[in-house]
Amino acid sequence: MSSDTSTEAQEKLIDLAADFYDQFDRGEIPRMTLPTRTKTNIEYDEDADVWVYGDRESTRSANSIRGARKLLKAAYTIEFLDNQLEEDRSSTLRELYYLSESWDSEEAQFSTQDESNQLIEDLEIVSEVRREDFHMRPEESGAKVMGPLLLREQTRRGDRDIHCQKDVGQGGYQIPNNPDTIEFLECDADFVLSVETGGMRDRLVENGFDDEYNAIVVHLGGQPARATRRLMKRFHDELDLPVTVFTDADPWSYRIYGSVAYGSIKSAHLSEYLATPEAQFIGLRPEDIVDYDLPTDPLSDSDINALESELEDPRFQTDYWKEQIEIQLDIGKKSEQQALASRGLDFVTDTYLPDRLEEMGII
Amino acid sequence: MSSDTSTEAQEKLIDLAADFYDQFDRGEIPRMTLPTRTKTNIEYDEDADVWVYGDRESTRSANSIRGARKLLKAAYTIEFLDNQLEEDRSSTLRELYYLSESWDSEEAQFSTQDESNQLIEDLEIVSEVRREDFHMRPEESGAKVMGPLLLREQTRRGDRDIHCQKDVGQGGYQIPNNPDTIEFLECDADFVLSVETGGMRDRLVENGFDDEYNAIVVHLGGQPARATRRLMKRFHDELDLPVTVFTDADPWSYRIYGSVAYGSIKSAHLSEYLATPEAQFIGLRPEDIVDYDLPTDPLSDSDINALESELEDPRFQTDYWKEQIEIQLDIGKKSEQQALASRGLDFVTDTYLPDRLEEMGII
Repeated sequence: MSSDTSTEAQEKLIDLAADFYDQFDRGEIPRMTLPTRTKTNIEYDEDADVWVYGDRESTRSANSIRGARKLLKAAYTIEFLDNQLEEDRSSTLRELYYLSESWDSEEAQFSTQDESNQLIEDLEIVSEVRREDFHMRPEESGAKVMGPLLLREQTRRGDRDIHCQKDVGQGGYQIPNNPDTIEFLECDADFVLSVETGGMRDRLVENGFDDEYNAIVVHLGGQPARATRRLMKRFHDELDLPVTVFTDADPWSYRIYGSVAYGSIKSAHLSEYLATPEAQFIGLRPEDIVDYDLPTDPLSDSDINALESELEDPRFQTDYWKEQIEIQLDIGKKSEQQALASRGLDFVTDTYLPDRLEEMGII
Repeated sequence: MSSDTSTEAQEKLIDLAADFYDQFDRGEIPRMTLPTRTKTNIEYDEDADVWVYGDRESTRSANSIRGARKLLKAAYTIEFLDNQLEEDRSSTLRELYYLSESWDSEEAQFSTQDESNQLIEDLEIVSEVRREDFHMRPEESGAKVMGPLLLREQTRRGDRDIHCQKDVGQGGYQIPNNPDTIEFLECDADFVLSVETGGMRDRLVENGFDDEYNAIVVHLGGQPARATRRLMKRFHDELDLPVTVFTDADPWSYRIYGSVAYGSIKSAHLSEYLATPEAQFIGLRPEDIVDYDLPTDPLSDSDINALESELEDPRFQTDYWKEQIEIQLDIGKKSEQQALASRGLDFVTDTYLPDRLEEMGII
């Protein structure tokens, strides 16, 4: 929202266009160089403690029709984004895709939304400006927050001071698309507990867990949106709160934890902005399935493949994860977080979470 | 939340169990009779103006092991619900499924979640008590509201007065699982505009549509949750507001409209509580695809099948829908609501919606 950020984003975009111009001017074939975005090209950044892209690069060059078209689309998109920032507007990735139909050059129009999504990510990487600062909104976030926190959100209609327990309904505070419009005014929380499913989030709120344990309960809603991950990072960095992640015990859920803690392959260029390397996995752990004799489903072939691929994933190369994944492959079973209800509706808030939090040294 | 509702729900549940008891006592094989829940057994209720179940019935009887097990599960579930209401607790459908693992009779445990979901629906139908009044929560609603409305939500932590523009962030007010905990205090709105996608919802809010047109903008988020449909019905009935539905132009989206206006086959027993027969479809209409020359995708085989099945669906037996569906089958194309962006980001709020609202006599 800040006009400084907008001006900086505009300048960086225009620099990109100027590069194309200079290349033409020097008689060179215009090109754009990007890090290769695959699992084999992400590596650990010791200083920042997150995974980032390695040194391998690929080049988009206008030396083929396909390459030239990509650069043309980039130029039109840069112009659109520059105008959008100039007018202090915003738009969604899908709108950009459709909007391209109104561009005068048919060659510049996107043929699929994957293409326009990918281009925006490319522009983020080469310009080092985040999508949010281009004012590109995601389709929806859906995530919500409940806990002892008073915040101020800067909206298009003025500032709003909201206490995330006293000023919200049972549904909690809805995270805006760009959480950098939020300022933290007062925080009485001791830690952050982020939760995969809506059902478990509602259980914790009904049982008053946020109140009793001074916890900020964040609903992740499956794979968390960028806005949710960004806000959790800010909770950690600015409020100095431990961040914990509570999911199902299956390989897809470990990826949710992975994206909170280490970033994702798709957005490794944003790890420093989105990832919270200090985030801790609270459960469900495969060993909990055994210890608490939880209701399970058998691992499917795709579950097994996903677990095996996690054993190779640089983000899961720790003794902890190797042990847990091996236990899971060994027992051949998975469980959902709500399976804790098989021990009664209060087991999760009276026993499981307090025990785990104590083990982890958080309470 | 009200204990009157809880007591009534408890009484009705116990009546069901008493029926089984009386049947045993009379030497009869216990049974439970339910309306048949298929498309051919829903019919139009002239008085209520919604679709309800017809006269065909099916009977669950203990004269087979399978039937006996169903009734046993019903008895255990009735006991669980009775306790839950007694203690003023609530739980999710998924928790119920897992919780059954702690029941002493293995025969009473559910083998799939479909089974426990279905049983709760059966109990709703025979007891005429809604799931919300059993305190069974859905997994999540996700829907949110923005507009000139001051409401009071009764939460487990006390009452919260919330203005759905002034007291919320850009994300809006999050609808709670049971919207009957909401009381409307002050409303300056002229109509309700419910919107299928998050991207379009954010577009309307960014463009200040709710403010300029005194509209309550409701985000449906795909097929709307029961809480969302219930709240829209209350907007219509209690605040006397016209309700409009804005979706993509494809057969799946027409079903979203259908479930808002006429109820769904799965929940025809709740039509009077959830459906808003006066709800109007604002678009996208297949004729808009033609009139505005919107970007399209071709209809897939499953789209065509769905449209043809809608031509047979009692909920779509009007001249309006027949015409629109025939136009769509004729052109062989579908469009998304965000496709309006091909005419510029403001086209939807400056031109499309105002024109349609005027045509429909709403503004």
